[in-house]
Amino acid sequence: MGRVAIVIGSSKDRGAMEGATRMLEAFSVPFDVEVLSAHRQPDAVFDFAAGAVERGYSIIIAGAGKAAHLAGLMAAKTTLPVIGVPLSASLQGLDALLSTVQMPTGVPVATVGIDASANAALLAVEILALGDGDLAGKLVRYRKTPAEDAPT
Amino acid sequence: MGRVAIVIGSSKDRGAMEGATRMLEAFSVPFDVEVLSAHRQPDAVFDFAAGAVERGYSIIIAGAGKAAHLAGLMAAKTTLPVIGVPLSASLQGLDALLSTVQMPTGVPVATVGIDASANAALLAVEILALGDGDLAGKLVRYRKTPAEDAPT
Amino acid sequence: MGRVAIVIGSSKDRGAMEGATRMLEAFSVPFDVEVLSAHRQPDAVFDFAAGAVERGYSIIIAGAGKAAHLAGLMAAKTTLPVIGVPLSASLQGLDALLSTVQMPTGVPVATVGIDASANAALLAVEILALGDGDLAGKLVRYRKTPAEDAPT
Amino acid sequence: MGRVAIVIGSSKDRGAMEGATRMLEAFSVPFDVEVLSAHRQPDAVFDFAAGAVERGYSIIIAGAGKAAHLAGLMAAKTTLPVIGVPLSASLQGLDALLSTVQMPTGVPVATVGIDASANAALLAVEILALGDGDLAGKLVRYRKTPAEDAPT
Amino acid sequence: MGRVAIVIGSSKDRGAMEGATRMLEAFSVPFDVEVLSAHRQPDAVFDFAAGAVERGYSIIIAGAGKAAHLAGLMAAKTTLPVIGVPLSASLQGLDALLSTVQMPTGVPVATVGIDASANAALLAVEILALGDGDLAGKLVRYRKTPAEDAPT
Amino acid sequence: MGRVAIVIGSSKDRGAMEGATRMLEAFSVPFDVEVLSAHRQPDAVFDFAAGAVERGYSIIIAGAGKAAHLAGLMAAKTTLPVIGVPLSASLQGLDALLSTVQMPTGVPVATVGIDASANAALLAVEILALGDGDLAGKLVRYRKTPAEDAPT
Amino acid sequence: MGRVAIVIGSSKDRGAMEGATRMLEAFSVPFDVEVLSAHRQPDAVFDFAAGAVERGYSIIIAGAGKAAHLAGLMAAKTTLPVIGVPLSASLQGLDALLSTVQMPTGVPVATVGIDASANAALLAVEILALGDGDLAGKLVRYRKTPAEDAPT
Amino acid sequence: MGRVAIVIGSSKDRGAMEGATRMLEAFSVPFDVEVLSAHRQPDAVFDFAAGAVERGYSIIIAGAGKAAHLAGLMAAKTTLPVIGVPLSASLQGLDALLSTVQMPTGVPVATVGIDASANAALLAVEILALGDGDLAGKLVRYRKTPAEDAPT
Repeated sequence: MGRVAIVIGSSKDRGAMEGATRMLEAFSVPFDVEVLSAHRQPDAVFDFAAGAVERGYSIIIAGAGKAAHLAGLMAAKTTLPVIGVPLSASLQGLDALLSTVQMPTGVPVATVGIDASANAALLAVEILALGDGDLAGKLVRYRKTPAEDAPT
Repeated sequence: MGRVAIVIGSSKDRGAMEGATRMLEAFSVPFDVEVLSAHRQPDAVFDFAAGAVERGYSIIIAGAGKAAHLAGLMAAKTTLPVIGVPLSASLQGLDALLSTVQMPTGVPVATVGIDASANAALLAVEILALGDGDLAGKLVRYRKTPAEDAPT
Repeated sequence: MGRVAIVIGSSKDRGAMEGATRMLEAFSVPFDVEVLSAHRQPDAVFDFAAGAVERGYSIIIAGAGKAAHLAGLMAAKTTLPVIGVPLSASLQGLDALLSTVQMPTGVPVATVGIDASANAALLAVEILALGDGDLAGKLVRYRKTPAEDAPT
Repeated sequence: MGRVAIVIGSSKDRGAMEGATRMLEAFSVPFDVEVLSAHRQPDAVFDFAAGAVERGYSIIIAGAGKAAHLAGLMAAKTTLPVIGVPLSASLQGLDALLSTVQMPTGVPVATVGIDASANAALLAVEILALGDGDLAGKLVRYRKTPAEDAPT
Repeated sequence: MGRVAIVIGSSKDRGAMEGATRMLEAFSVPFDVEVLSAHRQPDAVFDFAAGAVERGYSIIIAGAGKAAHLAGLMAAKTTLPVIGVPLSASLQGLDALLSTVQMPTGVPVATVGIDASANAALLAVEILALGDGDLAGKLVRYRKTPAEDAPT
Repeated sequence: MGRVAIVIGSSKDRGAMEGATRMLEAFSVPFDVEVLSAHRQPDAVFDFAAGAVERGYSIIIAGAGKAAHLAGLMAAKTTLPVIGVPLSASLQGLDALLSTVQMPTGVPVATVGIDASANAALLAVEILALGDGDLAGKLVRYRKTPAEDAPT
Repeated sequence: MGRVAIVIGSSKDRGAMEGATRMLEAFSVPFDVEVLSAHRQPDAVFDFAAGAVERGYSIIIAGAGKAAHLAGLMAAKTTLPVIGVPLSASLQGLDALLSTVQMPTGVPVATVGIDASANAALLAVEILALGDGDLAGKLVRYRKTPAEDAPT
Repeated sequence: MGRVAIVIGSSKDRGAMEGATRMLEAFSVPFDVEVLSAHRQPDAVFDFAAGAVERGYSIIIAGAGKAAHLAGLMAAKTTLPVIGVPLSASLQGLDALLSTVQMPTGVPVATVGIDASANAALLAVEILALGDGDLAGKLVRYRKTPAEDAPT
């Protein structure tokens, strides 16, 4: 099974991505969390995205706030699916949502809701499940779990 | 290779999804276009989504404007990845964007930009390419194509 | 007198609908509260809406936040009046307002203000009072009650 | 069967309400169109609303743009259900939407989408159908009509 | 000197208008505070506005939140200048601002900033000072007062 | 009777202020139109505002778009009432509205609707009418004129 | 090396500009903080801007909230670069952002993010570094500093 | 005198930057226009920014629409001042404005108004004039030019 890379621009965004890590753990999907700033470490961001396939990643989840460029930058350097999580660091996350979702033709970012990192992980699981029958089965069971017992 | 289902709520939205059909054709990804209104034909929408795996679909792309519920409804009835395209039928598409992307925990929709149906198709290609080396190669070549020669 | 169904997507939205339950009690209008998630229990939502007339309901009040699809979904499966209450779960409720009110032609949702569940109940009372002279009388008296003594 | 009053603030808004008149005609629901400006003829607005029951109206539909006060004013002077249609005279109708829907507790306005006068009429039909089995039957048939053949 | 009427829709808005009362006291401009709900007491609102000249008022300041109709209603029933103060009861006051300022041609409301009741009072003073040399002199001195010593 | 000064930042805004000039002419209120750019001729703006009383003006109407500073600048240099008209040069006038109305405590601008120059003139007439019985009488007659016959 | 002037409209905005003062100190760039209200002390604002070159300033940083006119006013009276910092005093700073950035042709303001005073200072450093090799060297080193050790 | 680099993401944005090229020509400031897509040619963007000093550039002006990452990306790879011009490709440019201006601490972009490329050039001239007395003189003369005779 491919790994998922969760990338954030600052270690202070770790909390905002806990929904994603809990969800991936619930589905036993392997993942790593990387802290890479689009603006302070642009080369590292590019290297990471460019080498993602080689390092065994299948999907990249990127969470960022304000003028959120991290997901778009990743998407520019890989053909793996990139899932963007707009974080509500200012303007209630509207700036991050628009900065993440309004990508130009040619370089899509699969955007989920503001601060919706758990859904980013679930989307990653849905994608991985296309090639993994066990995971597909788990997903079907997850959907049947009453909301109050499901991981979130 | 899995097929892609492009679903719209009204035949007048066909034009808005041409970016998607052109892009899928450019990548030789098989697809069908279905016209199913979330609000006038809710059962047909549910049946379509619930039977999507069986009919050979791997990904659903749903385009809708205003209070755009189509993608979310599909996502509620399948564990396949659902890609939502907010259409600019009113308020420049801001209503459709928020109605598509702000899904509750448990049921994600992979949202692309307003009217960005070509990017929805590209995202579908990226997802399918995870399990299809030929398609992955095409994607890499597409990215290297100068913008003016690339399908859009 | 017809019953009113108050439907919410999650039990954590109960508090937001207390204005509605208090108001219906003040008018002695019978009601039930159902917790049904548009996205996690779409079939139950459809069944509930489709069977609402049979179960004696005259009006459905649906409260939801974010990409609020609950009221629209109900409206798609019944010809009873559906009243939508946008809840302020994010973006101060602007996303829920637009997701609830901007319905396509053919399937209206009677939308009240953000978090305005008491007004949703009052609207239900106004509708029921069209066929119930006693209730109409109570409404007229309610309007004459000084604001500080009226239920809210 | 109760009549429906369609009230607009200026004769130049007639076109915007044609969706409503066509829909009411399709359902054979009797209606009148009144031109009454909330701001230039406030007394006439109040008199109309206060005398609406007496004149045989069951529902008032009010369409207005900008700082749309017409529906709220009507609602303040009657206990009949008032349906508000925000018109897109400026700011794409966002000002009219907020001015119509954000009513204080005690005086609800059943708000439909921006420029959605056809839906306002449908909502009126749904309300009247609660006490009129024939109309209820027509509504069920309307919903089964393919979208392209239905009045809009 | 003409009196100023400060009108609010609910006694819970008194605090929001303290900036106005303090400012009018600082300029020794006589005023009264009236609590009149546009929606629960529309007749009282109309009577108050229609009788404002007779009762010796020169200017009306109206503060309201959400779908703020109070100032517009007053303006519809008097030719005295009406100053509107949008209050931030929801959506940070954006709904109240648009509901107050976007009046149709023929019935203006002099709108000040969100929650800016002190400025509403200052505007009233500027208007009254056109016909009152002493007040004009006080205004000039007020402007020369360092900000930290001025009433606010 | 005091004169009204209509100030715009560029001669291309003349058209947007025609509603104001027509309205003032209809009430026979004397006025001048001055073209003074807040940003290109700041000293002339200040001199004009500072000398407005001396030149016989009682009220200043300032129309500007985008980051509309003209009304606020005028208000900073005079204690006469300043009426601001936000013009829709970009963002449908939302930027101009906020730049005009959100003044800090101490320096109010009486703001009217976006592009509502006729209402700005009417507000000026209302203010002047406080000290001019003839004008007050004209205002009362204007309000009684049917909307279709009134100047706009 | 030219000095930087940091101008705010009220002493209560000092805290919001601490990011700027800390950053300039970290780069040993000399600066002064002036409190000058665009609306209460317009002449002082003009005098300051007009005399800025003479007093040895190379760059002006102006921070203001609401209808933020301070930066634009400065820019109107000097040809030095003016950097505007929109402060979140209301509407989460959206009003201040639009009031600062949407300047008319001829008088630009270099606008940074909402409350982003540290970035305003960094931009000033980048500008000064064009003519100061030592400062340019410091900037390069600053960029290489890990985010957690850099001044902010 | 340092050169100015004008960078756009697509040749179809050339028209939107004509204000900048005309203004730089009016001041005889040398410049080049480069077409480099942040998302399709990320490496070229980085190389350009990283080599800008070496190629004799002093300032970079970047214009982009939608999720406008171009200016931010440039800023991440150079310590030269980067001026961002948000283009109105969708949502009237609000998405591009927020994506350009809301940069994280450490990497500022000097943002001008939506589509305000002429002002971007003027800001560049102001910056260059700090080290160029002739240019400073031209700027002072430009400001004294009546608006109708000035280049725009």
